[in-house]
Amino acid sequence: MTQDNRRVLQNDRFLKVLRGEAVDRTPVWLMRQAGRYLPEYREVRAQAGNFMNLCMNPELACEVTMQPLRRYGFDAAILFSDILTIPDAMGLELRFAAGEGPVFDRPVQDAAAIKALKVPDVHSDLGYVIAAVEHIRAALGDSLPLIGFSGSPWTLAAYMVEGQGSKDFAKPRAMLHEDPTSGQMLIDKLTESVSEYLKAQIRAGADAAMIFDTWGGLLTSEQYLKYSLGSMQKIVDALKADPDTADTPVILFSKGCARHINAMADTGCAGLGLDWTVELGDIARQVGNRVALQGNLDPAILNAAPEVVRAEVQRIFASRPNDCRHIFNLGHGITPGVTPEAVGAAVEAVHEFGTYS
Amino acid sequence: MTQDNRRVLQNDRFLKVLRGEAVDRTPVWLMRQAGRYLPEYREVRAQAGNFMNLCMNPELACEVTMQPLRRYGFDAAILFSDILTIPDAMGLELRFAAGEGPVFDRPVQDAAAIKALKVPDVHSDLGYVIAAVEHIRAALGDSLPLIGFSGSPWTLAAYMVEGQGSKDFAKPRAMLHEDPTSGQMLIDKLTESVSEYLKAQIRAGADAAMIFDTWGGLLTSEQYLKYSLGSMQKIVDALKADPDTADTPVILFSKGCARHINAMADTGCAGLGLDWTVELGDIARQVGNRVALQGNLDPAILNAAPEVVRAEVQRIFASRPNDCRHIFNLGHGITPGVTPEAVGAAVEAVHEFGTYS
Repeated sequence: MTQDNRRVLQNDRFLKVLRGEAVDRTPVWLMRQAGRYLPEYREVRAQAGNFMNLCMNPELACEVTMQPLRRYGFDAAILFSDILTIPDAMGLELRFAAGEGPVFDRPVQDAAAIKALKVPDVHSDLGYVIAAVEHIRAALGDSLPLIGFSGSPWTLAAYMVEGQGSKDFAKPRAMLHEDPTSGQMLIDKLTESVSEYLKAQIRAGADAAMIFDTWGGLLTSEQYLKYSLGSMQKIVDALKADPDTADTPVILFSKGCARHINAMADTGCAGLGLDWTVELGDIARQVGNRVALQGNLDPAILNAAPEVVRAEVQRIFASRPNDCRHIFNLGHGITPGVTPEAVGAAVEAVHEFGTYS
Repeated sequence: MTQDNRRVLQNDRFLKVLRGEAVDRTPVWLMRQAGRYLPEYREVRAQAGNFMNLCMNPELACEVTMQPLRRYGFDAAILFSDILTIPDAMGLELRFAAGEGPVFDRPVQDAAAIKALKVPDVHSDLGYVIAAVEHIRAALGDSLPLIGFSGSPWTLAAYMVEGQGSKDFAKPRAMLHEDPTSGQMLIDKLTESVSEYLKAQIRAGADAAMIFDTWGGLLTSEQYLKYSLGSMQKIVDALKADPDTADTPVILFSKGCARHINAMADTGCAGLGLDWTVELGDIARQVGNRVALQGNLDPAILNAAPEVVRAEVQRIFASRPNDCRHIFNLGHGITPGVTPEAVGAAVEAVHEFGTYS
């Protein structure tokens, strides 16, 4: 959408902070706010049969996106989907094995397999995600902004080469050393795919785009800058170069990469996600108010008593400089075992302590 | 040992760098240099039946410690053992499930279990490790220094509460938030255990002690400083306070914690391990020559061709400041799938490019 037809929302705190405008209170949403900790989610999930069925059904994906908004005073909705939809659309056949997390039945194992990969056609291969965005946009009306998202090219490549989750992703890391030409080719195909995917989400109704680089922290500095941040930079540039998406803010989240925070802030993105291991105040002092900072409550604290959660939320607010452009969030997704009450305590504490005077 | 009876070694490059003395060439050893990538190791391992049997047999533990020294020009030996011997000695019953890594049959699940834990008696409960150190010391003679080691209190606590390996150790992280009193009690018992364990290893013949804090990087800054670095500080202090161990250098290795590098250097340790995600030169400029820096080749590069390995070793040397006290190593342990030739290429490159003019 262009400047002229930018959506007018009843609650635009989240977008205002991304644009560098003043707000009355720190906006809040939580990564994985739609999910297993909610009994109403578990019901819909059971109805869908499995996780991918849920992602692929636009009505059900819309329903679970809306569920947490009925319970909590969140300032943004986020598309319910998975970060691995693009590799699935490339033919790797994603499934979720019980207790094992994501598995690709056809992982990418050599240079020939990388050469053969096709950039998916968003509308035919990933149409179910775009339909979900349209459903959610309609359900939200003009109440709240909707965040679209994708995995980062490196993070997608890591799963595609490893074939499943891993604690160190040794195979894709070895591939970048052994055959950097194929590595770059894989990253380039994913960069184009992610750019087209996010543009389509924005055209369908997303007001912001977040790129999850879950595994950037496993790379050497040189590799991170080249393969992970380098590809995210190209995506930011591609969105800015298209009049339909030029004004849409992009948030980058590279977990475990705070040492590269200045390079990340220089990409022209609107916001940076912070994991729970860093101090918001330290990062804010490094990047100034060039970008918004989103984070960074330790998700593990949602297992503690409400007063412990409250105190930690308060501490985070006390630690930030006055000019910090801050979107409250966790430092990683909500874990399935927490209670809806703990999440409520966190959100209420943001409402209470996050006001600007 | 006191200053007077400090062991005189034929090759003391490793200890000299830890003491801040000049050397002709950068010393090198590699984490997990004794291990599955060596066919002779796999033979002994098969003979032992399982991994814990190998750790518990001082003759076999000595044999596998010596194996890589026969192949490569390493400047130090490291005790062959596991980081989880202390929790096993506390009664948690460590075993290694096929394809799953370490599992405790009796994990620590509540405050009562923490209260009931006893600090092990090193000589009765961990006598097999001390016997292995004595065997290795005898086998080494005065040729090379021997490194003893332990897991850090936080890292041991993480496995003890989780009950097994994990990518995020959600249970122990939640425990620190929910019940910090029990968390501190567990850390304190482990701090005492690790101190006594390392002292006994040094008395039995270890020339240096390394503390592996594999999971320090999962903690918030406040938690890291309190539970992980705080307990390692107490261990450094305890070794310094004992005349038998006061002169023995200690190396701390907190993976993924470079943001705390200055606090680590302030503990009075002799050296800091660096993982592969940071630039040696950047860290050297932050800590100056207060401590030795040990690292930090990406272990994933050992899957690449020898000339790629050589070039990366050369790049690391080129990046360090002239006054950097450097011990060459990997940024994490050797992975089982690499070839003995790749390891040889790395060691030869250190010999070639690591000379001081």
